[in-house]
Amino acid sequence: MRPSDRRPDELRSISFVRDFTKMAPGAVLSCYGDTQVLCTVSYDPEVPPWIRGKGVGWVTSEYSMLPGSTTERARREIASGRLKGRTQEIQRLIGRSLRAVCNLSQIGECSLFVDCDVLQADGGTRTAAISGACLALHDAGTRLLAEGKIANHPITQLCAAVSVGILEGEGLLDLEYKEDRMAEVDMNLVMAEDSKFIEIQGTAERQTFDARQLAQMISLATKGITEILDRQREFLAQPLDDRA
Amino acid sequence: MRPSDRRPDELRSISFVRDFTKMAPGAVLSCYGDTQVLCTVSYDPEVPPWIRGKGVGWVTSEYSMLPGSTTERARREIASGRLKGRTQEIQRLIGRSLRAVCNLSQIGECSLFVDCDVLQADGGTRTAAISGACLALHDAGTRLLAEGKIANHPITQLCAAVSVGILEGEGLLDLEYKEDRMAEVDMNLVMAEDSKFIEIQGTAERQTFDARQLAQMISLATKGITEILDRQREFLAQPLDDRA
Amino acid sequence: MRPSDRRPDELRSISFVRDFTKMAPGAVLSCYGDTQVLCTVSYDPEVPPWIRGKGVGWVTSEYSMLPGSTTERARREIASGRLKGRTQEIQRLIGRSLRAVCNLSQIGECSLFVDCDVLQADGGTRTAAISGACLALHDAGTRLLAEGKIANHPITQLCAAVSVGILEGEGLLDLEYKEDRMAEVDMNLVMAEDSKFIEIQGTAERQTFDARQLAQMISLATKGITEILDRQREFLAQPLDDRA
Amino acid sequence: MRPSDRRPDELRSISFVRDFTKMAPGAVLSCYGDTQVLCTVSYDPEVPPWIRGKGVGWVTSEYSMLPGSTTERARREIASGRLKGRTQEIQRLIGRSLRAVCNLSQIGECSLFVDCDVLQADGGTRTAAISGACLALHDAGTRLLAEGKIANHPITQLCAAVSVGILEGEGLLDLEYKEDRMAEVDMNLVMAEDSKFIEIQGTAERQTFDARQLAQMISLATKGITEILDRQREFLAQPLDDRA
Amino acid sequence: MRPSDRRPDELRSISFVRDFTKMAPGAVLSCYGDTQVLCTVSYDPEVPPWIRGKGVGWVTSEYSMLPGSTTERARREIASGRLKGRTQEIQRLIGRSLRAVCNLSQIGECSLFVDCDVLQADGGTRTAAISGACLALHDAGTRLLAEGKIANHPITQLCAAVSVGILEGEGLLDLEYKEDRMAEVDMNLVMAEDSKFIEIQGTAERQTFDARQLAQMISLATKGITEILDRQREFLAQPLDDRA
Amino acid sequence: MRPSDRRPDELRSISFVRDFTKMAPGAVLSCYGDTQVLCTVSYDPEVPPWIRGKGVGWVTSEYSMLPGSTTERARREIASGRLKGRTQEIQRLIGRSLRAVCNLSQIGECSLFVDCDVLQADGGTRTAAISGACLALHDAGTRLLAEGKIANHPITQLCAAVSVGILEGEGLLDLEYKEDRMAEVDMNLVMAEDSKFIEIQGTAERQTFDARQLAQMISLATKGITEILDRQREFLAQPLDDRA
Repeated sequence: MRPSDRRPDELRSISFVRDFTKMAPGAVLSCYGDTQVLCTVSYDPEVPPWIRGKGVGWVTSEYSMLPGSTTERARREIASGRLKGRTQEIQRLIGRSLRAVCNLSQIGECSLFVDCDVLQADGGTRTAAISGACLALHDAGTRLLAEGKIANHPITQLCAAVSVGILEGEGLLDLEYKEDRMAEVDMNLVMAEDSKFIEIQGTAERQTFDARQLAQMISLATKGITEILDRQREFLAQPLDDRA
Repeated sequence: MRPSDRRPDELRSISFVRDFTKMAPGAVLSCYGDTQVLCTVSYDPEVPPWIRGKGVGWVTSEYSMLPGSTTERARREIASGRLKGRTQEIQRLIGRSLRAVCNLSQIGECSLFVDCDVLQADGGTRTAAISGACLALHDAGTRLLAEGKIANHPITQLCAAVSVGILEGEGLLDLEYKEDRMAEVDMNLVMAEDSKFIEIQGTAERQTFDARQLAQMISLATKGITEILDRQREFLAQPLDDRA
Repeated sequence: MRPSDRRPDELRSISFVRDFTKMAPGAVLSCYGDTQVLCTVSYDPEVPPWIRGKGVGWVTSEYSMLPGSTTERARREIASGRLKGRTQEIQRLIGRSLRAVCNLSQIGECSLFVDCDVLQADGGTRTAAISGACLALHDAGTRLLAEGKIANHPITQLCAAVSVGILEGEGLLDLEYKEDRMAEVDMNLVMAEDSKFIEIQGTAERQTFDARQLAQMISLATKGITEILDRQREFLAQPLDDRA
Repeated sequence: MRPSDRRPDELRSISFVRDFTKMAPGAVLSCYGDTQVLCTVSYDPEVPPWIRGKGVGWVTSEYSMLPGSTTERARREIASGRLKGRTQEIQRLIGRSLRAVCNLSQIGECSLFVDCDVLQADGGTRTAAISGACLALHDAGTRLLAEGKIANHPITQLCAAVSVGILEGEGLLDLEYKEDRMAEVDMNLVMAEDSKFIEIQGTAERQTFDARQLAQMISLATKGITEILDRQREFLAQPLDDRA
Repeated sequence: MRPSDRRPDELRSISFVRDFTKMAPGAVLSCYGDTQVLCTVSYDPEVPPWIRGKGVGWVTSEYSMLPGSTTERARREIASGRLKGRTQEIQRLIGRSLRAVCNLSQIGECSLFVDCDVLQADGGTRTAAISGACLALHDAGTRLLAEGKIANHPITQLCAAVSVGILEGEGLLDLEYKEDRMAEVDMNLVMAEDSKFIEIQGTAERQTFDARQLAQMISLATKGITEILDRQREFLAQPLDDRA
Repeated sequence: MRPSDRRPDELRSISFVRDFTKMAPGAVLSCYGDTQVLCTVSYDPEVPPWIRGKGVGWVTSEYSMLPGSTTERARREIASGRLKGRTQEIQRLIGRSLRAVCNLSQIGECSLFVDCDVLQADGGTRTAAISGACLALHDAGTRLLAEGKIANHPITQLCAAVSVGILEGEGLLDLEYKEDRMAEVDMNLVMAEDSKFIEIQGTAERQTFDARQLAQMISLATKGITEILDRQREFLAQPLDDRA
């Protein structure tokens, strides 16, 4: 039995809270069970030097855990002056995933910064970040388009992410922290609405895995992401306050 | 007329949300109008090297603004690898203010980390941080004492803080951002429950100020902090979930 | 037709040069076509603080590209004072892959540093690094065991890695740089001798990929790694100079 | 009795040595008793990016303690690669204080760097720095104006600073180190020639303070600063060598 | 007797391997006995800001030791985020030595980066680096000129370097590591083809040295460099593959 | 004619001011003409980790230029977070020079920090630093010995340094800045009282130099250092205030 009484192929309770804060044009609190990630999207009229003057836009992402988001305090990275490898991996993953569902050539020369800050961590923060960030970017795109700051909406289709793993030989969907720290294999998948893969990252944490287990994990993740995409579409079906 | 229709000596709506997140033993969302600061307190059995072996405890504080907390994105300090002077000033101020109302000689050798992360910034973030941090430290103290992690409660009395300023020659209490950026003088005061001062920091931003104006600001701040201390006592009067 | 006249499922010429340098107990030049990575293994009697006193060993890896290894000079990371995210990802991948085929609980308290320095880069440097590092670690283990510095050989089975990708819709094995920079999908796989997976990391660089393409890439990589493992066993079948 | 046989409201011996060094257009050694701060002002035709092209000037300040300025060596900040919070606070304070008595809109587009380096530290270094820096800036302004490098003199009126504190319940003016380290309250005030305040920063180091004590400290500081302003005017009454 | 059975005035076996790697336009492996330094030269169309627009070129050098180049692992400098003083000294020495035999005013506005990476260290790495870098720069110059990237060849004459020292009172040429670590005096000399000195750097490591010993060391070094220059000319006498 | 009307073999006016500041046990202002370097020596009961427990002492040096010490402001190195190569070279040179005339095995386990801060720079700062630092270390040794903090005096003999150069083909002693910046060759020599060399560092800045010129520079430097040693002995012949 899983710690939260879930079946192996059952997601945690997933929800997205729109406009959790109100300064940024997109701000979504993404909740996967007790994992809570605040995803905000900010607009900047500048682009990085290497694409300046090309008339195209840019989307980038940063990720951080608040120190109080974990039972044992998570030390701020500024304390050492360096980003941890884990953080860099995660923010690169989020950025690539979002760019895979964006068309930036038509929005005009500007940057959209997607910040994912973990308020509460209980496993799967990077996957909650991706699913929430996609919605925050969608909201920001809608508002920035209405304000005339961008020329077209950046999002071409939605994307969502979930973790899967193998614990005591069995495949499990959407691991919470108690499961995650004991899992033999840990895998994160990102998929788009068209059911195609954007990212697959699987690691043998304690044991190597065979082709059958790999297939099982991919199947579980596909099921989970399909459900999360439903939640995302429900979110977007609600009217967005235009802040006029 | 002030942008939020307040009288010169009127606070914004002040509230404190207990256990806004649940991983840390103390976690309070401190709201001064639209300014929202998440204050969490974490326990660490280690103390800094310079007090090791003396049997006394330590309280320290860190402060940060989430990138999406402001209309124009606040760049992460890790991006430059350095804390800004403003951040260092604020976290030193919070730490000194809390230590002024703590007795750390009796809690046992351990550290309490007070993290103040601004979710939404509309002026006065450092003062909201101090008032909220004091409550988060109080809650954490109560729980850590119950768990036997500390030997005595660290807090000896409450403290609270507020900003005051002079705008177009007139003293104003609890400035919001629109006022703050145009104020001629900006002052932050921290007081304890016994009505004594802990910190006073006043700066001539656009114009110097005379003794009469200084007295008026101190009087306004005293009135405001007295009201905030009332809110803090109401907060503490509510029973604290023991998480047993 | 591929730039090097290979079939889609054909590896580049793979070779491993033993004792390419002679200061370190293990030093292998790993060549995948024009990609050349010098993998050295150094012994250190210290372990990191968090496992001190537990009697177990540690294996870690660092990766770097020499500035002249690419046509356009690769700037040294020390010039900015920070490791790039890509570098951190790669060295974490190499370290995890090696630890998955090591038993460190029986070697005694010491560290083995695996350094992978790219002398010439033509795509697939991280996979060449993993396959070469495994051999360098094997040689170092043999010598350190003979010298009495470690109590048991660390390696439990071999591991090897290869990249696969999709270019113009077709799966390709072991991409060289010209292919890599145009690939729609880029995937790296690490497998152990028992045919089980250690790592799978696939990214939609220009286009998302479906389940059929994912299966094809896994199949290609499995074929390639099987051949590389053969080369590794031939390498180890040669007697190792004992430097007595 | 105070360690230097002073009355509570008595300053230490205050003096300003003009052209203590001769490379910079302004160079004043500011002495408050045994505290000696070398204040130099350098001219730079560049301004920071955010005011470029606006035709206005800039004044900024840096502060540092020489390692041998204290009995226990003061470690260089470059050794850790980071400015301490205390240093940042002080140099921000000096810069704000000087800008409060400057009109930079008429000097032309250039920067004036005010460097305050402590040769000998015996308490009150930041206040000695401000009073000396104001004079060094005055001298530099006079010379740069004569050389045609600036269009108008930057200084509109003088400013000076002093520390006050409470020790064993009693207010003291201009604390030296032995007093400063035992003071219950420590306060620094900066005033302009027109008797208005520029900065007030008071901290309860060991004990909170009440309104009466606050008023006493402000009164002591006002008296002290008035005397320091006299010394500054005497300094400026001496003819300045034009170095022609 | 020296550890390698050499006479006091005898060089180690010196050789230069052309095009040791093939991505950079110049790539020479410089071998002084067991010391092996890979010297590559890369072209960059940019110059540093301070010479931009002047139409002249720039040559600069960086030096690094691979971690596995020494028996005890050489820690990467990026691990501390800072270049060691020794490294900075060496790369400044290499850069100055090369610029002393270059005419950069006629090559056009571009930078030539000379990277010296030590694959194997057995004493004298900086001198092997200089002699090899001069050849790599010569090859790169020839190829870049043929490609039309530079307007004239940068090299005006060759330069070479060697170390000398005093061990047990006796002067020795071209010290290997076993000698170097016990030497009383360590000196490095760089000379040009016209027999004039470019650099002389002598240090009393364990004992001061007198004028006679200084003269002996200069004489030994002059003999050694003359022989190395012969090897360099033999190297250049071989036809250079034009990579057409 | 030299800018200061000196003969080619004539030193600038050389003086050493004892106890220029009074916090450190040794504090000497070293003046070579307009070059002024404040050399202080501080005592620390700790030694670096690598010699801990061996019962021996340590001497190390740091060098810095005050921003206002030059006509064009010298940017603080903390501003970039990194020591420049020039600074590292100089402080390593000073440290080596002092250690060459110290016996640290008999002073007991402690560190002596020698800080050389340039107040005014007019060429030759590193040589003025060495000569002054030797005296500051001598004074500090005398006082620390009297206080019982060290067991024996560290200094075995004096050392001094001077620069020489070639300008328009002629050898010059003790270059000031106007000469230094135009010199074809720049050389620094450090000698001990026994007339033996400690360091020789010569660089062809604009032109290579031949053996005759090298001999001339060594001869000039020897003459100059002999005179500086006389000044040092006069300094030490004055009684040292014991600060009892």
